[in-house]
Amino acid sequence: MEGGFGRVISTGRSGFNGVICYRGNLSRACGAGVLFKDALTSIAHHTGPLRRFGASSLASMVVLAIGLSAMTAYTMPELQKTAGGRLSACLWCCLAYFAIECVVRARTAVRAGNAKQHILSLSGFVDLLGLVAVPIALLCGVAPPTAWLLASFWVLKLAQNSPAIALIARVFVVEAKALAGVSALFLIVLFLSSAAMYVLEHDQQPGPFGTLPAALWWGVATLTTTGYGDAIPLTHLGRILSAVVMICGIATFGLWTGILATGFAAETRRRNFIQTWDLVSTVPFFQSLDPAAITDITHMLRRLEVPERTAIIRRGKVGDCMYFIAAGEVQVDIKPTPVRLGAGAFFGEIALLGDSIRTANVTTTMPSTLLILDLADFRTLTANHPDLKRAIDSEGQRRMSANQQLRDRQRLGGAAPSRTGET
Amino acid sequence: MEGGFGRVISTGRSGFNGVICYRGNLSRACGAGVLFKDALTSIAHHTGPLRRFGASSLASMVVLAIGLSAMTAYTMPELQKTAGGRLSACLWCCLAYFAIECVVRARTAVRAGNAKQHILSLSGFVDLLGLVAVPIALLCGVAPPTAWLLASFWVLKLAQNSPAIALIARVFVVEAKALAGVSALFLIVLFLSSAAMYVLEHDQQPGPFGTLPAALWWGVATLTTTGYGDAIPLTHLGRILSAVVMICGIATFGLWTGILATGFAAETRRRNFIQTWDLVSTVPFFQSLDPAAITDITHMLRRLEVPERTAIIRRGKVGDCMYFIAAGEVQVDIKPTPVRLGAGAFFGEIALLGDSIRTANVTTTMPSTLLILDLADFRTLTANHPDLKRAIDSEGQRRMSANQQLRDRQRLGGAAPSRTGET
Amino acid sequence: MEGGFGRVISTGRSGFNGVICYRGNLSRACGAGVLFKDALTSIAHHTGPLRRFGASSLASMVVLAIGLSAMTAYTMPELQKTAGGRLSACLWCCLAYFAIECVVRARTAVRAGNAKQHILSLSGFVDLLGLVAVPIALLCGVAPPTAWLLASFWVLKLAQNSPAIALIARVFVVEAKALAGVSALFLIVLFLSSAAMYVLEHDQQPGPFGTLPAALWWGVATLTTTGYGDAIPLTHLGRILSAVVMICGIATFGLWTGILATGFAAETRRRNFIQTWDLVSTVPFFQSLDPAAITDITHMLRRLEVPERTAIIRRGKVGDCMYFIAAGEVQVDIKPTPVRLGAGAFFGEIALLGDSIRTANVTTTMPSTLLILDLADFRTLTANHPDLKRAIDSEGQRRMSANQQLRDRQRLGGAAPSRTGET
Amino acid sequence: MEGGFGRVISTGRSGFNGVICYRGNLSRACGAGVLFKDALTSIAHHTGPLRRFGASSLASMVVLAIGLSAMTAYTMPELQKTAGGRLSACLWCCLAYFAIECVVRARTAVRAGNAKQHILSLSGFVDLLGLVAVPIALLCGVAPPTAWLLASFWVLKLAQNSPAIALIARVFVVEAKALAGVSALFLIVLFLSSAAMYVLEHDQQPGPFGTLPAALWWGVATLTTTGYGDAIPLTHLGRILSAVVMICGIATFGLWTGILATGFAAETRRRNFIQTWDLVSTVPFFQSLDPAAITDITHMLRRLEVPERTAIIRRGKVGDCMYFIAAGEVQVDIKPTPVRLGAGAFFGEIALLGDSIRTANVTTTMPSTLLILDLADFRTLTANHPDLKRAIDSEGQRRMSANQQLRDRQRLGGAAPSRTGET
Repeated sequence: MEGGFGRVISTGRSGFNGVICYRGNLSRACGAGVLFKDALTSIAHHTGPLRRFGASSLASMVVLAIGLSAMTAYTMPELQKTAGGRLSACLWCCLAYFAIECVVRARTAVRAGNAKQHILSLSGFVDLLGLVAVPIALLCGVAPPTAWLLASFWVLKLAQNSPAIALIARVFVVEAKALAGVSALFLIVLFLSSAAMYVLEHDQQPGPFGTLPAALWWGVATLTTTGYGDAIPLTHLGRILSAVVMICGIATFGLWTGILATGFAAETRRRNFIQTWDLVSTVPFFQSLDPAAITDITHMLRRLEVPERTAIIRRGKVGDCMYFIAAGEVQVDIKPTPVRLGAGAFFGEIALLGDSIRTANVTTTMPSTLLILDLADFRTLTANHPDLKRAIDSEGQRRMSANQQLRDRQRLGGAAPSRTGET
Repeated sequence: MEGGFGRVISTGRSGFNGVICYRGNLSRACGAGVLFKDALTSIAHHTGPLRRFGASSLASMVVLAIGLSAMTAYTMPELQKTAGGRLSACLWCCLAYFAIECVVRARTAVRAGNAKQHILSLSGFVDLLGLVAVPIALLCGVAPPTAWLLASFWVLKLAQNSPAIALIARVFVVEAKALAGVSALFLIVLFLSSAAMYVLEHDQQPGPFGTLPAALWWGVATLTTTGYGDAIPLTHLGRILSAVVMICGIATFGLWTGILATGFAAETRRRNFIQTWDLVSTVPFFQSLDPAAITDITHMLRRLEVPERTAIIRRGKVGDCMYFIAAGEVQVDIKPTPVRLGAGAFFGEIALLGDSIRTANVTTTMPSTLLILDLADFRTLTANHPDLKRAIDSEGQRRMSANQQLRDRQRLGGAAPSRTGET
Repeated sequence: MEGGFGRVISTGRSGFNGVICYRGNLSRACGAGVLFKDALTSIAHHTGPLRRFGASSLASMVVLAIGLSAMTAYTMPELQKTAGGRLSACLWCCLAYFAIECVVRARTAVRAGNAKQHILSLSGFVDLLGLVAVPIALLCGVAPPTAWLLASFWVLKLAQNSPAIALIARVFVVEAKALAGVSALFLIVLFLSSAAMYVLEHDQQPGPFGTLPAALWWGVATLTTTGYGDAIPLTHLGRILSAVVMICGIATFGLWTGILATGFAAETRRRNFIQTWDLVSTVPFFQSLDPAAITDITHMLRRLEVPERTAIIRRGKVGDCMYFIAAGEVQVDIKPTPVRLGAGAFFGEIALLGDSIRTANVTTTMPSTLLILDLADFRTLTANHPDLKRAIDSEGQRRMSANQQLRDRQRLGGAAPSRTGET
Repeated sequence: MEGGFGRVISTGRSGFNGVICYRGNLSRACGAGVLFKDALTSIAHHTGPLRRFGASSLASMVVLAIGLSAMTAYTMPELQKTAGGRLSACLWCCLAYFAIECVVRARTAVRAGNAKQHILSLSGFVDLLGLVAVPIALLCGVAPPTAWLLASFWVLKLAQNSPAIALIARVFVVEAKALAGVSALFLIVLFLSSAAMYVLEHDQQPGPFGTLPAALWWGVATLTTTGYGDAIPLTHLGRILSAVVMICGIATFGLWTGILATGFAAETRRRNFIQTWDLVSTVPFFQSLDPAAITDITHMLRRLEVPERTAIIRRGKVGDCMYFIAAGEVQVDIKPTPVRLGAGAFFGEIALLGDSIRTANVTTTMPSTLLILDLADFRTLTANHPDLKRAIDSEGQRRMSANQQLRDRQRLGGAAPSRTGET
């Protein structure tokens, strides 16, 4: 029955020996403090995937930051005089780095046989633009400080590695009609109010309201509630109109936000579902379920990609989720001999069944993909699928009783449980 | 069984011959780039309906843009001197175009027997207003630059063809009570804070806070967080009050946004449901389902109206949805002879069943209405309706095996599959 | 069977005779125009309940608007000189009106035996405050223009009749903890950034950043993105800090909005459910359903309170909802003899079953409470409850066939159906 | 059967005697006023838990407010001269208070055996930072007014006791990827628009657009719609670009808000579920339900922690919820002898079953944890679980009939029911 829901790669005599719940009586006096530390370690925990990004990607980001800073500094006359040479050298170095990066990517694409597609893709275009813009400008005889301004195209590299930006782009595409409607409304209000304001104010203020383009400038700054303050109506009617325009601006904000919020939520849910679905089918634990139940569960699970040697669970922390291993391997640090769990296994369920305190450190031994099931969803899932609850319960009981036996044996042998491994 | 879920208009020997999955081993090295290109082609894809708008509507938009620009330029004294005649001629041309458009529409309405209704409708009123406002002003002896300002009513034509604006109007109507409540709150805060500010500041700053109307002007600019900066409290109490007003402004924003976001989401869902419902009933594939299941499916499908000769699917792209043809016809570009699919058929399911790479180009041969089923909803749908899954699976298998046979035959005959048709 | 789902108060020979679908072939050429007119009539339709407010409430609002305008004008020195007497008289008249209103309300409360509760309620307090504030100030020897400023408390009367404001107040109460959390975050960012800005800038700009209160003033204006522009950092570090503060401001906005939007949506849903629940149980049509189904339906229906002699449905309009009469009576304007429907009956279902064009005018004969079922919800409801669908269908068929018979008879008799009654 | 759903600690002869519905015929003439009073008492009701905070926490907040005010005042030169000594003394007192608080907390932690964890927690760090920052600065020879600026770290104490801030932190963590995507978009728009603006404007305005950092400053102020007004484009192209940037700013707002709103709603729902789950299982009334039903109910209930001697229900008020006692005890103020209800009992159901008027005052006798079931959820719950409805109904009937008997007896005995206890 155990094999039915988790492949346990046992490196010791029995799984989870030595993991003892002696932190169960942890005083919760500093509750809020614990919450905060949890939040912080949880940041480290969730940003783990960033590290998987790889060293090359991190280096890209650092070079990008240096390059953009140098380019920015290069436009300041005083720095140009005192440190112009060094800044210029720095910029050339960044350009060289991007050139190498571009060549590496192009070669990978050529080897994979999709060179044409790579060049036509946005990624390839951004690489090329960042590479050739400045040299071409310099060759055309543009002065260096102006030519290097074209290095601001490097900032587009931020979009190369971001699935979130692709997601946002898709939201804009799907909601295009609704956004176009709000924009039409925006334009109608803008044009009519600016024309009216031009009529009302252009005699009194020939500067800021003397022409319709100037009035439109006021209209945009007011309708977006930016309010530069360079064009301000002075007549009573103008001010009343202006108040109406400001309130229309808030309404535009509201509609825009409503559309984007709704679209973003729907798109995120859809994207997560697709990414999680394939992983769920790889976990043997769920294979006994009918497809409709798997659909439910897929909506509950969150994907987490963790690099090698990353701590997933720390002993003594409050635990509010359990984990299924979709790919990779983790090591449970139990005292006599650590236990390894491979793809298909689950861990972290003891805290959910018991007093919500983690009983052992768990660390990845290779880059792994985990599926997280939050406590709230765990309750809902086990309420609707009693057989899953039984399976998790029996494994949890087995592990806890094994721990208990070990603890008893240690206590008889006089070995006090050490607290190393905690932070 | 095939006839049960799709009317295949076969122009060749067998459906989908020659569509080969040889792009299945496509390297996904440039994933992010692909995502972006997808987003871009997807924009072209989704904005397809705009083209259906028709040439006349597009011309209207161009004339509108030219007219509004000319009108804006006409208010600038320097341009009025140097290019006044040309701008004036341009404006008269635009007016002539709108007059013709107005006459055409009116004649259509008269022929349809609803002339009275047309004139009373907003569309007819906007047409008429745009047509007569400027000539009447000129006849009344208003100077041309001022009279042409009335051409800004042309911007209302943006609202004539926009279902999104009608949707937004409906949201405001349905949420009128709640919005009135927030507006009342806004007025209360505005009036009380302005009166208090007038008391606090009018001795020190007789200009910006010398009268209650002036204080109200400060109140509006602050409560909408526009902050022109022409009226700024100087006393300590005034600044504290001002801070409270700004925070109330954020809260008003939040409530306004919350109401509009909720209302917009509900209204969009309702509108989509109604538009999709009638189409779903025309697809024979869904006719075996009970009404409750059809209600579920209607919530999942999205409508897409595509003009003639538009590419729906491009071979080699990542596919995350399948299509049902509610009306119209598409052509699947398979090598020896293309296949045509008519109303009631479906396509694009091979990518969802297999490795998510599109295996053939699909183009419309006439203006068509498609129903899109996203991957996430496809999974949910097939999980809850195993019979639908079986029907899609068996058709997909049939098509793939037909492709496989053709590929084998071509390989024996030595004809390498060409890659034209990709981009 | 008919009696089972609607009490028809028949004033003619048979229900719905003479209502003929001859508008079924209505050209939809001016679709967008129709959409707009619909939106406008729908505004009139939905704001109908405002009229129920009663003449006295409308008069209150008018007197309030006049009073506040007069009070505002009274603070302007030039108007005070030229029209001071008339403004003062106007204000005294408003005060007299509010005094009468206050007395009437108090007497009603005394008669109902809850005088104490009335005085302690916000409504009573607002009445009293508006009444005594100005006279007491005048008695204390305050100059009239200043004393009349206290009339700005009248604006609180806007909150007296508004259930939406009570709803908003409840949202703030329920979400108090979360809002307090965001406010704490706001204060932390505000204080730390202002202290840092004071350190960075107070040497360079002793005016706007010379003291911590001044820096806090900058902080509030920046964190709320108001940006008055009176205090602007000049140092590089100051500007980077300022950029961070602005972005924190957007995040605060986002959190605030998110909390209020979520809370408002939940509270509205709950309030609507409670208000609709009692009405649903009065409609015999729904009494055959089990309680769980009634719960579903209650979420779908919207309440609409309509005063006497209000048009609910206009013939020839596009119809997207049907109505159940919870209380009151409507008259269906059918040619030979109009038909009256009382509480428990339904109407408007013919458009949903057929070609979505309304076939007759329907007007209330007394103040009525209707329950609206939108087309989308109608589809869902009938899909899940086939018996309801059968009942509605059979009544719809009966009414349509009666109309058909009458139409045939009229055609034989040569009497062309007149089109009066349309607009 | 009674014991099955509520442990009644009866202190009198029979439960709920003397509670009479004589307020059932309460005139609802001042409906809006009642709504408001309800909202206000409901604030007092919901903020009850704040009082549980304890006197020490309240004292902390007061000392914090005094300390921050004194520190702010200390930076103003005029106050420094006139009241420097008093302010300094006040600040030292606050520091002393925080030192004592810090020592108390540390001792509690040491006694609980988690001293190390306390120091490493955010709570401990904030305590320490607030304690040592100023003395160290003074010892290092920093002038007192500057050194005391470091007391602004005290504001972090606001985050120590706030679960809402921990919740917000978690939302940011979970939504980190999406927020990073929006931030990348923000940076791309910011950099490209600022570079373009620098090119367009730096010749004409060497001040505000003379360098790229200056242009970036304009970009941030515009993209966040703060609009200080110190850098304003003058060229036509610059203004058009600026308008685009402002609209991008609104879109960024919208995305940010959408992400945070969605994340916050999901996180709140999850947190509430977890907190409520354990309490639900302690109420015997729900123990007969299957786990899936308990999951449903857990989503419906809200937790409310009430300190000792707090009024939960006031007689004569409109009631829209019922209460289950998860822990603690309440006293129902019935005339001859009050009744006490302990953990597991419920109250407040009579208003939901009858005319929605509360029939008795209910007050806590010890700190209690209640579960609130709103009227809308009560309807849904009882519709789906008829057995629960029966149990509540029979208890309600029993209580009401007991009240009725008592009322009859009192009436015969001539004892008019007094109205004391109402407010």
